[in-house]
Amino acid sequence: MQIENILVVSPMWKEIQSLISENKLQKNFRYVSETQVVQDDLEWADAFVAFNIEKEFDYRQVKWVHSLGAGVDSFVYKKEWPEQVLLTRTICSFGQRIAEYCLSYILRDIQFHEQFQRNKLEKRWQPITPGLLSEQKVMIFGTGEIGQTMAKTFSFLGVDVYGVSLSGKTKEYFSEVNAIDSFEDRLKEMNYIINTLPLTENTTGLFDHEFFQAVHDVGFINVGRGASLDEAALLLALEKQQVRFAVLDVFSNEPLSSENKLWEHPHVWITPHISAVTTPSEGVDCFIDTLKNIEANKPLLNKVDIQKGY
Amino acid sequence: MQIENILVVSPMWKEIQSLISENKLQKNFRYVSETQVVQDDLEWADAFVAFNIEKEFDYRQVKWVHSLGAGVDSFVYKKEWPEQVLLTRTICSFGQRIAEYCLSYILRDIQFHEQFQRNKLEKRWQPITPGLLSEQKVMIFGTGEIGQTMAKTFSFLGVDVYGVSLSGKTKEYFSEVNAIDSFEDRLKEMNYIINTLPLTENTTGLFDHEFFQAVHDVGFINVGRGASLDEAALLLALEKQQVRFAVLDVFSNEPLSSENKLWEHPHVWITPHISAVTTPSEGVDCFIDTLKNIEANKPLLNKVDIQKGY
Repeated sequence: MQIENILVVSPMWKEIQSLISENKLQKNFRYVSETQVVQDDLEWADAFVAFNIEKEFDYRQVKWVHSLGAGVDSFVYKKEWPEQVLLTRTICSFGQRIAEYCLSYILRDIQFHEQFQRNKLEKRWQPITPGLLSEQKVMIFGTGEIGQTMAKTFSFLGVDVYGVSLSGKTKEYFSEVNAIDSFEDRLKEMNYIINTLPLTENTTGLFDHEFFQAVHDVGFINVGRGASLDEAALLLALEKQQVRFAVLDVFSNEPLSSENKLWEHPHVWITPHISAVTTPSEGVDCFIDTLKNIEANKPLLNKVDIQKGY
Repeated sequence: MQIENILVVSPMWKEIQSLISENKLQKNFRYVSETQVVQDDLEWADAFVAFNIEKEFDYRQVKWVHSLGAGVDSFVYKKEWPEQVLLTRTICSFGQRIAEYCLSYILRDIQFHEQFQRNKLEKRWQPITPGLLSEQKVMIFGTGEIGQTMAKTFSFLGVDVYGVSLSGKTKEYFSEVNAIDSFEDRLKEMNYIINTLPLTENTTGLFDHEFFQAVHDVGFINVGRGASLDEAALLLALEKQQVRFAVLDVFSNEPLSSENKLWEHPHVWITPHISAVTTPSEGVDCFIDTLKNIEANKPLLNKVDIQKGY
């Protein structure tokens, strides 16, 4: 597919224009805010690039629509999408962001930051040998774009990475991938469990009392969806030392209520849904990568499956 | 070089035997403690493998001596070494250990662990976007085995890695290597400075008042030698916010005296010289890697330069 005329619609169009122009692309660009854009602009354009959009347009005029955000509900939710038009979304840096988020808490644990922090307060010189990433086993729930980027990063660092997915299909960078109904035998060996799954009927309440019965002294990290975790079951598992510590970035109800017991638990880390965000700069990087992949006829990992809606 | 008969001398010889035997090498091994070993054993052996040794032997009987530790002073310090005998030491995992140590503190910083820890105590939901490793510039002092392993790890993760060495010679995984007398112009751009240098005349007091004048809001990590750092200059630099925080694993005098002001500084992390240690398992892994490299005539990165003494 050849793209020449690109229409960029965003309230931040000046910032985006400045970021795109750094790349010196040989394309024609038109930058407008949503209030200014008209259907004629789409007739001129081959590609339509926008964040969230409220107006309704006839997208059959363009070859490609790219969402500068991760969510594409403003394009497809309860709407009819013209199947000949390619729809892509920004997912490019999420895997890396989530990988670094998880890695920071795993390294903090094996490098004994807490113990050394306490020893420092007491001016105590007490050597402890840190663990190595190559001695760790991590199970990642979700082997899609995010899970796989995480597996690539972790396996490069020597971590033994196990995956869990709907199909259980083997994937690069994973030592083994188990189907969602057959991972239990492996759980006892794991040092860390990471959830990256989207919320579906299969994943609601997946991490429940029964699940935690099967783990031992594990670090549990949730960067998927809050409703996949049974919070009461987690608190009990912390008490029984099935879970040694938990790092939670997502919750069933956000912001997390100040009444919630998780806030006060000494072995729970709470972050306010920040493990995967999109900055304008990353949105632009992803748009440019996608453009290059389209023109080179390469596979598009960020193509939206209209049926699934993501 | 072909090695058939291997003599392993260590108080932990049973543990080492068990670790070596897992590798099913087609070699003849003799495991003894230092009190049992006699010169006749060396006449039988092609290779002599030991940690620290107090007895004096005539090493001209063997082709290769491998130290299970990093230090080789018990073999060469104030002694005459037969130049035809290969001497190697355990350095294999140091680079990885030190890389993970440094990475843990850099990730802790860009992921705002401190801020989220404080917000949790106040039950405050306040999103902050973490930084990405790909946005960071790190300058590593020392581009040898340790510095280069660190550069490989960091550059894989997207970090922009600068090196400083005696020669300033270009090395893989570094964006640029500066000579030790010409790195100052780059300092202001750096987010983190890591020292891995050995202690020599060139590196004593290298990180002094003048050095810290040239940095801005930097994270300073010392995993090299304590005497390369002027502690008073560091404390002043912390006060002037030239240094945002410091992570110190090595000190001029160890254990660090309880009188030392570093203990009480809120932006100084102290660890008790633990960033690079050798476990029996790693010592054995390094021995086996070295053996394979010797037999395949591959370059030996852990060969001791007898003149330098390391």
